[in-house]
Amino acid sequence: MVAVTDLVAEAAALDAADPLAHKRNEFDLDASVAYFDGNSLGAPPKHVAERVAAVVREQWGGRLIRSWSEGWWEAPVRVGERIAPLVGAAPGQLVVADSTSVNLFKALVAATRLQPGRDEILVDADTFPTDGYIADEVARLTGRTVRRVVAEDMPAQVSERTAVALINHVDYVTGRAHDMAGLTAALHRAGALALWDLCHSVGALPVELDAAGVDLAVGCTYKFLNGGPGSPAFLYVATKWLDSFDQPLAGWAGDRDPFAMRGAYEADAGIARGRAGTPDILSLLALDAALDVWDGVDRGVLRTKGLALGDFFFRCADELLDGATIRTPRGEDRGHQISVADDDAAKTMAALIDRGVIGDFRPPNVLRFGLAPLYTTYGEVLRAVTTLREFR
Amino acid sequence: MVAVTDLVAEAAALDAADPLAHKRNEFDLDASVAYFDGNSLGAPPKHVAERVAAVVREQWGGRLIRSWSEGWWEAPVRVGERIAPLVGAAPGQLVVADSTSVNLFKALVAATRLQPGRDEILVDADTFPTDGYIADEVARLTGRTVRRVVAEDMPAQVSERTAVALINHVDYVTGRAHDMAGLTAALHRAGALALWDLCHSVGALPVELDAAGVDLAVGCTYKFLNGGPGSPAFLYVATKWLDSFDQPLAGWAGDRDPFAMRGAYEADAGIARGRAGTPDILSLLALDAALDVWDGVDRGVLRTKGLALGDFFFRCADELLDGATIRTPRGEDRGHQISVADDDAAKTMAALIDRGVIGDFRPPNVLRFGLAPLYTTYGEVLRAVTTLREFR
Repeated sequence: MVAVTDLVAEAAALDAADPLAHKRNEFDLDASVAYFDGNSLGAPPKHVAERVAAVVREQWGGRLIRSWSEGWWEAPVRVGERIAPLVGAAPGQLVVADSTSVNLFKALVAATRLQPGRDEILVDADTFPTDGYIADEVARLTGRTVRRVVAEDMPAQVSERTAVALINHVDYVTGRAHDMAGLTAALHRAGALALWDLCHSVGALPVELDAAGVDLAVGCTYKFLNGGPGSPAFLYVATKWLDSFDQPLAGWAGDRDPFAMRGAYEADAGIARGRAGTPDILSLLALDAALDVWDGVDRGVLRTKGLALGDFFFRCADELLDGATIRTPRGEDRGHQISVADDDAAKTMAALIDRGVIGDFRPPNVLRFGLAPLYTTYGEVLRAVTTLREFR
Repeated sequence: MVAVTDLVAEAAALDAADPLAHKRNEFDLDASVAYFDGNSLGAPPKHVAERVAAVVREQWGGRLIRSWSEGWWEAPVRVGERIAPLVGAAPGQLVVADSTSVNLFKALVAATRLQPGRDEILVDADTFPTDGYIADEVARLTGRTVRRVVAEDMPAQVSERTAVALINHVDYVTGRAHDMAGLTAALHRAGALALWDLCHSVGALPVELDAAGVDLAVGCTYKFLNGGPGSPAFLYVATKWLDSFDQPLAGWAGDRDPFAMRGAYEADAGIARGRAGTPDILSLLALDAALDVWDGVDRGVLRTKGLALGDFFFRCADELLDGATIRTPRGEDRGHQISVADDDAAKTMAALIDRGVIGDFRPPNVLRFGLAPLYTTYGEVLRAVTTLREFR
């Protein structure tokens, strides 16, 4: 067993060699806290507060209604194009609008319409609840049934009855990452569509939607993309499905000529058909500002650091947390979050937060520590583990 | 015919006697423009820019994830309660979430579920497009048909087949206000539900949802409520329907115990069941800040000024715009907008905007001038009409 002082030296050396260390300064983070909840709510880039205030003063106040034709109306697609490279999507397939839940509804209904002869929706049995809830509602409205299957069993369970399978790329409880390309290919062999939820992977691991042949995807922007609390989510529709993507929240913002104010809806030819109502500009432009921190960030470097932060967590836990059960896989089949089992997780996390180590917990018994390569340091990882040791 | 100088004196006298004149100072409006588009995008209250920046710095940055349990999660219902008095709703019936289009979808599907034996949805034939588009999609998903009927014919057209009728309280083209209590009663006599779209009436005329016996309502917050571009909309469900309000966008935010992360959805007992996904906090708290301008505003005084601004517009137009066709009714059956027919509306409005008179136009041929009693002055009304005279 190494001494804590050795781990301190190791952490310092890792931080000194970190090619992303300079990014930390772009975030507004109190030096007294160690923030491990970027997988739930990303930290604010420093320039966002002033940028949002400027949007209010200069665009809303200064230009008033004119701003709608000076960039606001097209912002959902423009900001989508900024996220596209982070998920391996060529232009024209991503739009930012509404919440993840609402985008799941659009995507699932559209998927059933693309697959009229198939009566079943498969849902990742370990899914974040909202995905399953929305799938149940879509099934009820479209006369389908939902079957819950763990992701790794989907290749064996998918059949000619399966319209679409909804899978979380990274599991929100354990941090496990699923094999996007492999599972998508298996679904396709059975003629099913693949709908991926990227909430816990976008901005963490490299996502390659186009290369994996993914049909549809959704994701949130307030975790590793740091867009702000409840910032609007995104919807991806693969180019091959765009013409036939027929979604039920056909509000005026998805119409091909919204200001013509016609009586009958005609979907926009492009990804704007994924829009519903008037876009929420203040939140959307806060996200737009937050995305500036990705300028010049190599996704490979990001992933390497995310894995290294996790490896260092494992190492510290092995040395300092005798007998702890870690739920996160140790291989590369993980996102940027470490989940530690704890029978009294709510109480333990409250104690950690009191000591400035801010993570969260999920039922029934998991402490979650998010590792955000843009701002998490190795020193903080050690602090998390040594603080946790005091409460076990 | 009176001289313009007489109208100038009249405007000055009206402004001097205006009991809401002091409110103008609470808005960030450039003195060089006369803003007549508060019926499309309300002007920003001065304090909103700093309040939003403070939310980013102090709540998001300062408290990070902890803010979700320090007011953010409940904000949709809390802010809804602030709007409730403006629409005559007792507590517990209003929630702020998503866009108007998305809320229309929730309300219309829920209405068809409350009326299983009825196969028709009536839609105001002059509706803002998105309402009709969403109704068409709801009909398609639920096996209903949509019939478009002008609002005043609904009492004659409603039948035992009608599940619900969707009516705009104030028509977006003409500014005409419909008789909410009378039409609702006529729908009820036939056993149909009444769903009102308040986008162009909330914050303008007094709305009395409870007293009129309205079943369901939606409305936007970025027009006369000044919530900011695309700020989240609201949904009203009358208390008598709350227990049976069964909406299809059953995301985790509407669940009775969202952080238990259960596998099966159970709707919240209260109006929070109208929520779908994670709330958009920056926009929601910008709206929250904007609502401060309503403190101490008497709705009767507001309505009186709104009508008086319109009356003065009519008077100026009668004197100065020879032969102009005004589409807005002259009685009290109108909102706070005056619509003037113009065969070249797009070009005329562009010329007006060039001269600092900012309204908008709607196809095929209507110039719209919104009158916001909290900040529009009689002097500006005269300026609008005299400027318009130059381009006719």
